[in-house]
Amino acid sequence: MKLLEDKIRKDGKIGAGNVLKVDSFLNHQIDVGFLCELGKEFHRRFGDLGVNKILTIEASGIGIACITAQFFGCPVVFAKKTKTNNIYSDVYTGKVDSYTHGITYDIVVSKQFLNKGDRVLVIDDFLAKGSALKGLLKLIEDAGAEVVGAGIVIEKAYQEGGSLIRGMGVRVESLARISAMSVENGVEFIEEV
Amino acid sequence: MKLLEDKIRKDGKIGAGNVLKVDSFLNHQIDVGFLCELGKEFHRRFGDLGVNKILTIEASGIGIACITAQFFGCPVVFAKKTKTNNIYSDVYTGKVDSYTHGITYDIVVSKQFLNKGDRVLVIDDFLAKGSALKGLLKLIEDAGAEVVGAGIVIEKAYQEGGSLIRGMGVRVESLARISAMSVENGVEFIEEV
Repeated sequence: MKLLEDKIRKDGKIGAGNVLKVDSFLNHQIDVGFLCELGKEFHRRFGDLGVNKILTIEASGIGIACITAQFFGCPVVFAKKTKTNNIYSDVYTGKVDSYTHGITYDIVVSKQFLNKGDRVLVIDDFLAKGSALKGLLKLIEDAGAEVVGAGIVIEKAYQEGGSLIRGMGVRVESLARISAMSVENGVEFIEEV
Repeated sequence: MKLLEDKIRKDGKIGAGNVLKVDSFLNHQIDVGFLCELGKEFHRRFGDLGVNKILTIEASGIGIACITAQFFGCPVVFAKKTKTNNIYSDVYTGKVDSYTHGITYDIVVSKQFLNKGDRVLVIDDFLAKGSALKGLLKLIEDAGAEVVGAGIVIEKAYQEGGSLIRGMGVRVESLARISAMSVENGVEFIEEV
């Protein structure tokens, strides 16, 4: 999506360790008008698939999920991160490795809010190694609900998450796919076909 | 706001320890269409005050802040919770006591995203003892920005937060103000004047 690629080139910052910072518009400060354009694009790509629920993960997925849900006319459910090992009986649980923070945490969703028959679109800001997305897909599977697809804002396509999840048969649509980035050369994108 | 009071009466649940659970529409599953109505109401109350930024706190404030920001045409900034004691030079920091979880955590906002001259509306889902709101107000003060007011979805008016913050001279507008609640009698609201 050219609009997003231009925004990343203009406002994204590449920091130490080749971390892409997009916190001026996506995950600290949120440019809500811009997110609207992303939400419209997700709806263009997934709008005819009978989505009745959007699932995301706290915290930075919530904004983009809520804005996107307006186009689908459906509710958002966000998985909560927890460090407790208590497994409650009334929640579905999964595990997510955070490479940024070097920890593994549990994610939970109340069983009330994911049900058999639900057609779920997963929305998240980033896809890199795919751990968060895999964790979310497990919650949906445990609930007996159906995964319609995954809508990702920025995919680091040089990492394995995208292939991993697509290899599971899930339709993944990433609005920007980064093929390489470095402080010297900036961000390079995979061209849309 | 009658629409919200009716929703709380209908879908809210009072659990052990007189905890009000509104996680079917506000802070786990999010009824985005309903939040739109709340956002419109915040705009009705604060729309003529030159707000150019909405500040909230992760995670459950993000959804309502993003939906509300659409009516104001301004960005959202969300404060991040952190358990590290590292005070970075490029962030404003505050402390928040969580009575629910029995811990104190630091909140941070990047200095880039709160500036002198900003007219900031704080949005949050709950106001009880006022610790989170006080923490957010400190960030705004540290940045030399101006607090336009605080828009709260649900105020537990039988706790001291509302008086505390109003006593600091901040305009607090809560869309529902609970005067009392119990499993036996349900939720009672303070009538709007």
